[in-house]
Amino acid sequence: MSHDAQGKQAEIIAIGSELLTPYRQDTNSLFVTEQLNRLGVDVVFKTVVGDSLEHIAAATRTALARAEIVILMGGLGPTEDDRTREAVAAVLGRELKRDPAITAELYARFASRRIKMPENNKRQADVIAGAATLPNHHGTAPGQWVECSWEGAERILALLPGPPNELNPMLLEECVPRLKSHLPSIHFFTRVLKIAMVPESQLDARVAPIYARHANVRTTILAAAGECQLHLRACAASPEAAQSQVDDLAEELEDELEDLVYSREGETLEQIVGYYLQMRGATIAVAESCTGGLLGQRLTSVSGSSRYFLGGAIVYANDLKTSMTDVPPLLLAEHGAVSREVAAALAEGVRRRAKSTLGLAVTGVAGPTGGSEDKPVGLVYHALTDGGKTEIVERLFPGTRDGIRWWASQQALDLVRRKLM
Amino acid sequence: MSHDAQGKQAEIIAIGSELLTPYRQDTNSLFVTEQLNRLGVDVVFKTVVGDSLEHIAAATRTALARAEIVILMGGLGPTEDDRTREAVAAVLGRELKRDPAITAELYARFASRRIKMPENNKRQADVIAGAATLPNHHGTAPGQWVECSWEGAERILALLPGPPNELNPMLLEECVPRLKSHLPSIHFFTRVLKIAMVPESQLDARVAPIYARHANVRTTILAAAGECQLHLRACAASPEAAQSQVDDLAEELEDELEDLVYSREGETLEQIVGYYLQMRGATIAVAESCTGGLLGQRLTSVSGSSRYFLGGAIVYANDLKTSMTDVPPLLLAEHGAVSREVAAALAEGVRRRAKSTLGLAVTGVAGPTGGSEDKPVGLVYHALTDGGKTEIVERLFPGTRDGIRWWASQQALDLVRRKLM
Repeated sequence: MSHDAQGKQAEIIAIGSELLTPYRQDTNSLFVTEQLNRLGVDVVFKTVVGDSLEHIAAATRTALARAEIVILMGGLGPTEDDRTREAVAAVLGRELKRDPAITAELYARFASRRIKMPENNKRQADVIAGAATLPNHHGTAPGQWVECSWEGAERILALLPGPPNELNPMLLEECVPRLKSHLPSIHFFTRVLKIAMVPESQLDARVAPIYARHANVRTTILAAAGECQLHLRACAASPEAAQSQVDDLAEELEDELEDLVYSREGETLEQIVGYYLQMRGATIAVAESCTGGLLGQRLTSVSGSSRYFLGGAIVYANDLKTSMTDVPPLLLAEHGAVSREVAAALAEGVRRRAKSTLGLAVTGVAGPTGGSEDKPVGLVYHALTDGGKTEIVERLFPGTRDGIRWWASQQALDLVRRKLM
Repeated sequence: MSHDAQGKQAEIIAIGSELLTPYRQDTNSLFVTEQLNRLGVDVVFKTVVGDSLEHIAAATRTALARAEIVILMGGLGPTEDDRTREAVAAVLGRELKRDPAITAELYARFASRRIKMPENNKRQADVIAGAATLPNHHGTAPGQWVECSWEGAERILALLPGPPNELNPMLLEECVPRLKSHLPSIHFFTRVLKIAMVPESQLDARVAPIYARHANVRTTILAAAGECQLHLRACAASPEAAQSQVDDLAEELEDELEDLVYSREGETLEQIVGYYLQMRGATIAVAESCTGGLLGQRLTSVSGSSRYFLGGAIVYANDLKTSMTDVPPLLLAEHGAVSREVAAALAEGVRRRAKSTLGLAVTGVAGPTGGSEDKPVGLVYHALTDGGKTEIVERLFPGTRDGIRWWASQQALDLVRRKLM
């Protein structure tokens, strides 16, 4: 992995006692990190702290000592638990002043909803002396922006609200432009190549020699069940130069990996399958046994999928394999529900019933029980037919019930993609 | 919320540069927090830091100053990027010694797999002077346990591996017993009540007066799409006393909320529906339009669901509503696919086709497009029939396509639960 040489460093502080329980965690920092990275800013620390004045102040002090940009998220609400404003003012040794314009806006906001404003809400108009306020178009708490000196070094502090629908637009509309004016004019470009059904180690071995020829591009490989992502990122003096560095590498990778790369613009596998189906004017129907509806759920998670997805059958019980997709009972008796033959019959059966271009079927043993020596947990058959040719893929997936079901849906979708591309 | 008076404070440090990208985040700390909370230990800070010796050392120093127990996760692997051992040794001013017994074990481990051990792996045998080593039965990196004094105060440091399948057992088997010997003998009991399809604010108003009578139980309310959870936790000198405090409150809450509480032992809604179906010797089949398979996927996510879930039809296209679930084309033409009448026909159609006890159907507008003034995005009809009586629920859900689909599946499952309980 090569690293960008320049660039400022940031710390993100997430504030809220609920983020220190086993049930909730900070997820806002992912979006914030993405936006900062785009500006060439690296996140070097993340801290989570509860609603304690003392703890927020301690975390802020620590952050100011080690990062040039400090983003605080949360604790700007109207309740006694919302202490971020006070904590930061105390750390900076500045006064907190109630802003009459913000107070008036708060009153107006409540009045327009015909609600009397609780006294507590006035706290949201408290502004740290010297801070710029960041308007909040999606909630009552304005953000605050402080540029200051800390032990002789220049520091930027942003106090942002916790709810993502308030935080994200404020970050984009208010913070990003302000940060840009403090950063060197460097442009970044990122591209993500997604690859289905290839083990990470195998992929890594194929791409490593190519990476070596592109030291100017920063690369990361991320692996999840049935999918790897190659993240490519470059920085340059112009957006075009950054993109061309990334795209030179992306092209070589795609040449090497051929049809394995299914997405280069961030699309999901189900979106890509949808594109191809629409492009070919084709429709699809599914017959699902072990996935129990997951394939349909994934295909229909894409808005507009009704243009190519007709529906299908969830044939969990064997009787339904016969009554809903016309699998002959004798075939089931002879080969068993988890078999090449039944997979093919399911795909063809649902295709004919739905009158779709393609029929896609999955049957397997998702476990944890129900496996046998012949048909162990993880064994899954996937079949795709266009009425003429039927393709069948046998796989033995590792992992849990959820994992096996996910892998199976991934393999099934990839089968469609490869047929149509 | 009442707080436990006693109890030590902990900080969790997650180590790994990938945890500072927009694509990955620390999730280990949730499990660690849960285990610490059970011992009466509160987590007061969480820090995420990259693979930098200097940054790990800085985070460790900060943590030692503000928490009695410091849990470090990750950075114990064999590569140059794994710097946790060195960083902690440097902070404590102690030597790092290569342990011959661990080195021998590492060699034996590789030999048994007939692989030559890479030289780098020996680094995993480096132990901080005075530390106890924690055996790792699921990987090569042993953990380390240090009890020390920091600025005059007693401190405990645990260095644990990052992969959850190594970290979790090491925490339970090695750290929990050691921590217990340092903590007062206090017992905790936690119970979670789950409630479907009630808004948080409404629930909160009903439970608040009851909470007030049980100040000895610490309570938290957590809300997600279509579900609220009430977390109840008490501590006492005996496990029985702690449980009885929690259960006294739980009982009053269940009296107040009547049939709204669907789970008190952590079960999911689909598990509870499964229990009831099995208990009644009943079977179910589903007809899904806007949920596209999600209902089936949720029902079959439960191992053993083949005992009561037969299958169903994904009737995305109108033709399939007719061909797979016998909805009369005239009914579709007259009322539209998203209607009370079609929902009822779908439920009855799939029940007859599958020969199941119950038929469950969902039809709605998941959006973001396809809404009209009459039938806006978020409008969903849910129908449940036993062949005689058919119940129909109309709802208008807020939110995104994913959110609306989730709410719809939640409402449909809750309909089954209420019918069977």
